[in-house]
Amino acid sequence: MTERSPLAPAAFPALPDIGGVTLRIARAQYKKWDRCDLTYVELAPGTAVAGVTTQSLCPSPEVEWCRDALPLGQARALVVNAGNSNAFTGHRGRAAVEAIAARVARHLDCVPSDVFISSTGVIGVPLPIDKAEAGLDAAFAAPPCSWEDAAATIMTTDTFAKAAVTQAVVDGRTVSLVGIIKGSGMIAPDMATMLGYIFTDAAVDAPFLQSLLASANRSSFSCITVDSDTSTSDTVLAFATGAAGNAPLASFEDAGADAFAAALADLCRQLAHLVVRDGEGASKFITITVDGATSDTSAHRIALSIANSPLVKTAIAGEDANWGRIVMAVGKAGEPADRDRLSIRFGGTEVARCGLAVDGYDEAPVAAHLKGRDIAIDVNLGLGDGRATVWTCDLTHGYISINADYRS
Amino acid sequence: MTERSPLAPAAFPALPDIGGVTLRIARAQYKKWDRCDLTYVELAPGTAVAGVTTQSLCPSPEVEWCRDALPLGQARALVVNAGNSNAFTGHRGRAAVEAIAARVARHLDCVPSDVFISSTGVIGVPLPIDKAEAGLDAAFAAPPCSWEDAAATIMTTDTFAKAAVTQAVVDGRTVSLVGIIKGSGMIAPDMATMLGYIFTDAAVDAPFLQSLLASANRSSFSCITVDSDTSTSDTVLAFATGAAGNAPLASFEDAGADAFAAALADLCRQLAHLVVRDGEGASKFITITVDGATSDTSAHRIALSIANSPLVKTAIAGEDANWGRIVMAVGKAGEPADRDRLSIRFGGTEVARCGLAVDGYDEAPVAAHLKGRDIAIDVNLGLGDGRATVWTCDLTHGYISINADYRS
Repeated sequence: MTERSPLAPAAFPALPDIGGVTLRIARAQYKKWDRCDLTYVELAPGTAVAGVTTQSLCPSPEVEWCRDALPLGQARALVVNAGNSNAFTGHRGRAAVEAIAARVARHLDCVPSDVFISSTGVIGVPLPIDKAEAGLDAAFAAPPCSWEDAAATIMTTDTFAKAAVTQAVVDGRTVSLVGIIKGSGMIAPDMATMLGYIFTDAAVDAPFLQSLLASANRSSFSCITVDSDTSTSDTVLAFATGAAGNAPLASFEDAGADAFAAALADLCRQLAHLVVRDGEGASKFITITVDGATSDTSAHRIALSIANSPLVKTAIAGEDANWGRIVMAVGKAGEPADRDRLSIRFGGTEVARCGLAVDGYDEAPVAAHLKGRDIAIDVNLGLGDGRATVWTCDLTHGYISINADYRS
Repeated sequence: MTERSPLAPAAFPALPDIGGVTLRIARAQYKKWDRCDLTYVELAPGTAVAGVTTQSLCPSPEVEWCRDALPLGQARALVVNAGNSNAFTGHRGRAAVEAIAARVARHLDCVPSDVFISSTGVIGVPLPIDKAEAGLDAAFAAPPCSWEDAAATIMTTDTFAKAAVTQAVVDGRTVSLVGIIKGSGMIAPDMATMLGYIFTDAAVDAPFLQSLLASANRSSFSCITVDSDTSTSDTVLAFATGAAGNAPLASFEDAGADAFAAALADLCRQLAHLVVRDGEGASKFITITVDGATSDTSAHRIALSIANSPLVKTAIAGEDANWGRIVMAVGKAGEPADRDRLSIRFGGTEVARCGLAVDGYDEAPVAAHLKGRDIAIDVNLGLGDGRATVWTCDLTHGYISINADYRS
């Protein structure tokens, strides 16, 4: 998949530098390819860190390393390896992670737990320590690079480099948040995964940053799906360097905390959408909103049941307003639903209401909506106030070609 | 999809008549097609019935009708409409079901609750009562037909007519069980579904037949998946006419009850396998066995997580021993699992053990196995005695073509 997704933004965004963040890339040659595949980010002393990781019970050693280091709340470096996920590699995989942390800690004169590490790519092959160490040494010696270079270096089968930016005024200072991200759920061959990194010059205490990230995650990364397959390595980390010089944010009582939280949530949503827009084989970006559920959690489960249904996804690929498949997906979700109160809209046009097709609804606007790139499906259950929105893409021949038509 | 599935049996099986069962078919013309689409089965007075239906919370009125009638335990007729599922059609759909039951009850001089009804096909369009009634009248006047004709008449997008037979000795008499079935989960366009009907000349009390069917269902129909989409109309009904003249089976204390239960379970498994073998776009029949789980239920959930993973299914389509995707699917199942105890076999060859790829395993037998039509994946979790087997098919371009490449 070298062809750029039809859902990709027109261009890579203009991004500000973030004080305290220095990006470098190098060639570790984890695969036989002519590109950089190791990203090394140096963070100023005092940088706070927060993170969320996959809920898979078979996580990679990188994920376990990050989980162990996150409660300490501080970071000096991030290393991202592309081309090898190092997942399911036992003690050899763990040794590679420890070797990387040790090498960086020696270089920066910090403790190994200050070093955050991710890897993405083929599973089951231990990350070669010699290549990682040589790659790190090359990165240490390399000149700083751009956001776009870093975003491209963490890619595997992604078709475009993904980044977003937001700003907020905190304590009288404008702080910036920049995020880079790769992958599109668990949709790439060889278990490439979703990895996201957020950098801000705001000063934020680590525990508060963690609570803000967890909250933002719930309305962004946890609300996207490409193919229902959850990776072993999904990781999102947020680093706050404090270079903006604001009084550190420690709670919502602090001036600017609300603005920062909103900016972080906005950034996470932007990044999550970029992942869906690079979904393997995707030709449509689909927003599914469920209203009227018995709770927000119930609405979320029903929305995901719709978003993960192969029949719904293929219907959208076929530009078919097949609302019967949506009824099916609501029915199988196992959440409270009443067939005779259900209503469904495509692009705002109601096609089914109270358990029946709407007699003689105008098909023209629905057909026109489904021919577009951005599809809106709204479901009202008519039971309560529960509400949720999730985002997904359609299921096309492209997905099958990428995942079945060749040996990995 | 008129091309016969490559996984279809060579021929329709030879099936015995079942005393007390008379099959007839007719053209109700629910769709514009040149074929019979209404199946009418007359059952001798005293026939016991049992059934299991979809767990969807948005079921069709036919499913609701059967659910209401099943506790009464007796049946005189079965009507199956193909080409229109009558699901999500509100009071108009309910009226069609009531009209069908009334017409048959008048014809047979029985109560409407003796009439069992299923419909399969497009969703959201009320079943036309006039066509159903005219079709029934034609069926009443038609000569009896063969099992193969009946099995073909309940098809929608199925590529072959499906039936199976088993026998058992009960109370000194050989009883026969014949089943016909259509669909392949929720994989056909327009929400065609899985409908199965089992007929036996054994005498079995309805409550005992219900308990045997529920048990057989748990190890057959509940263990198959094509695309994870659960239909609004799934129904399996078992009819026992008693024409064999055995002393009625009422519990496992009765002679022959074990043999009958085994024959019923065997028949259900055969029918379930036929559905998978007609999975849309299927090119491989996949048996997934999970051992060593903390419980049978946990093993079942993990096996289904593997069977429903688009990445596992596309890997098998690509004849790729991508066991990393199996680790992923185990990890996302949410059930107890320990990465470092997990082992995985393809066709009996161990490729991963204790959280690591098996060094230098012989790839030749694995590659040869994956080129075949019947694929075996065995996962051992190394935690306990829980065990489960499920069956599925691969995910190919055929599935996308059938479900996305045209408007339904």
